[in-house]
Amino acid sequence: MPELRKDPVLGRWIIISKERRKRPTDFPVEISTGSGGFCPLCPGNESFTPSEVLAYRDGHQPRNGPGWEVRVVPNKFPALVIEGDLSKEGVGLYDRMNGIGAHEVVIEGPDHEVTFADFSSAKKVLVFKAYKERIIDLEKDSRFKYVMVFKNHGKAAGASLEHSHSQLIALPILPRMIVSELDGARSHFKYKERCIFCDIIRQEIRQDERVVCQNDRFITITPFAPRTPFEMWVLPKRHASAYYSLDDADLHGLAEIFSESLQRLNRCIPNVPYNFVLHTDPLRSGGLEYYHWHFEIVPKLTSIAGFEWGSGFYINPLPPEEAALYLRESFGPTSEGAQSEKGTLG
Amino acid sequence: MPELRKDPVLGRWIIISKERRKRPTDFPVEISTGSGGFCPLCPGNESFTPSEVLAYRDGHQPRNGPGWEVRVVPNKFPALVIEGDLSKEGVGLYDRMNGIGAHEVVIEGPDHEVTFADFSSAKKVLVFKAYKERIIDLEKDSRFKYVMVFKNHGKAAGASLEHSHSQLIALPILPRMIVSELDGARSHFKYKERCIFCDIIRQEIRQDERVVCQNDRFITITPFAPRTPFEMWVLPKRHASAYYSLDDADLHGLAEIFSESLQRLNRCIPNVPYNFVLHTDPLRSGGLEYYHWHFEIVPKLTSIAGFEWGSGFYINPLPPEEAALYLRESFGPTSEGAQSEKGTLG
Repeated sequence: MPELRKDPVLGRWIIISKERRKRPTDFPVEISTGSGGFCPLCPGNESFTPSEVLAYRDGHQPRNGPGWEVRVVPNKFPALVIEGDLSKEGVGLYDRMNGIGAHEVVIEGPDHEVTFADFSSAKKVLVFKAYKERIIDLEKDSRFKYVMVFKNHGKAAGASLEHSHSQLIALPILPRMIVSELDGARSHFKYKERCIFCDIIRQEIRQDERVVCQNDRFITITPFAPRTPFEMWVLPKRHASAYYSLDDADLHGLAEIFSESLQRLNRCIPNVPYNFVLHTDPLRSGGLEYYHWHFEIVPKLTSIAGFEWGSGFYINPLPPEEAALYLRESFGPTSEGAQSEKGTLG
Repeated sequence: MPELRKDPVLGRWIIISKERRKRPTDFPVEISTGSGGFCPLCPGNESFTPSEVLAYRDGHQPRNGPGWEVRVVPNKFPALVIEGDLSKEGVGLYDRMNGIGAHEVVIEGPDHEVTFADFSSAKKVLVFKAYKERIIDLEKDSRFKYVMVFKNHGKAAGASLEHSHSQLIALPILPRMIVSELDGARSHFKYKERCIFCDIIRQEIRQDERVVCQNDRFITITPFAPRTPFEMWVLPKRHASAYYSLDDADLHGLAEIFSESLQRLNRCIPNVPYNFVLHTDPLRSGGLEYYHWHFEIVPKLTSIAGFEWGSGFYINPLPPEEAALYLRESFGPTSEGAQSEKGTLG
């Protein structure tokens, strides 16, 4: 049984996933994505994954066979398990509970070679719709408080399989980042009676210095205090705290703005590894006036991601106004090559 | 002038280091440590670094020449600059100030080939003493609120130069991680009138499940809720909130426990990249009853560090009790090889 543990000082929960336990020699310093080898996510290999919980396919084709456009399956090596009780307990100073939750893999398309960024917007709609449907389904389980949706693209961003996929984890606790966001947003609302994200959107549109692109329903900005070069946030223009409240037109707008944002990013830094994380409200919170769902897209540039993730402190060499300018103009690579001068910052 | 910016929702400060600004093509996805090439940190190349602010060398040898054991120099490409005013200001919703601070490189030894882990304890003493002296000196500057000391070892942990070195950044703000730690520790103290870290040390010694090693003055544990496999904390057994309060005997005890802890880590995972970060109290806080300085050593295992640093949420496949057992017994690599089975967690 996996375990959830809370750091007694920071209040940060982590998952100890004993099912995925490894021996010291099982931690290669570099891991290969296994390009060219067998892929359990490809059509025809459905029997190598657990039975699907959702799939979009032609109505005449059987479950757990090929013919799907998007397929959601439980993770074969889940960080959390679906069956059991939470059994919360204290161990001296410490707090723990059983690692109850859902851990699912969203296989974003049948084609092994095509990355999410290169999907048509119509294909992206299906992926975003699958997130929505899975969140709505998982909300019914009262043990869960939050559903995290995230994508690791590229080896440096943590992807161990090449085939385009994202992941979804239903948690019995709120992740610390969301707790902090809710706290910050609540404080702002208490003082101003306005959603801080709505204020940010208004200010960004007015200043027009960090807007990457927008359509009727969505806007992509480089945030004022970004952790990495080319960090982007994708926000709905209309206030909404819950991701799953988006309607069909929203899904199309979201797919379109993701297509444009990722294409612009890839034209600035070809094949850049990145993570995106959905930030949405806690399950069953019933629509919050002070919170605003959004995606955060964080490119993983290994040359700068050193101690930062261990310390929570970030140094970013590129002002977001300049990143936005590059993204708006979508500069391609120049002839100056990819190697920069190296500073003494190690 | 670099700039400090605060995320309006999270209160997280980041540095926009325009001096280190780059074009999109300057972000290589993989960066080489330049092994075998010219090294600006080696003896004889002192003129390639800014003038030293501290060095331990034979008294007869001139400044900025060879003969040193430890040498501290300003970073040639600093994230923050020492001269100027903070000029704090609001920009609509946002808060910013000038990026005033110090950014120094601690060159830990003259030998290019020897890693910090392999230093004798006597040599490590000089490094830890240099941290202490620099913090005491930087505290005199009333613009600074905190001194961060950290080390990136290995390419995957962000080191761009191979020669063993650590870094020190004096900041006009408190990093978010420290604010959170102080808040958590203060709450515990308010309720219990005890330092939470002292409580942790007592409980760890009593339980003896996560103790890696200890000596008279220090203890190394794998924390109850570690972010990564083999994460270790090194804490002074006697309560102290300020790192720079350590005396000569403490310096020796610290050097010895670091030697032992890193040797044990390297025997479990040879040449593992890692970061360590000093967590100490804010400058001029005058001795806090509720806070306790310590080092956090975080191995960088790229196979698991995916979206975690972007989301603040961690999945760790190795329980710290087992990590402690491996570290105590210091298993070497087995014949099973370094490649593990891969899960569908991407």
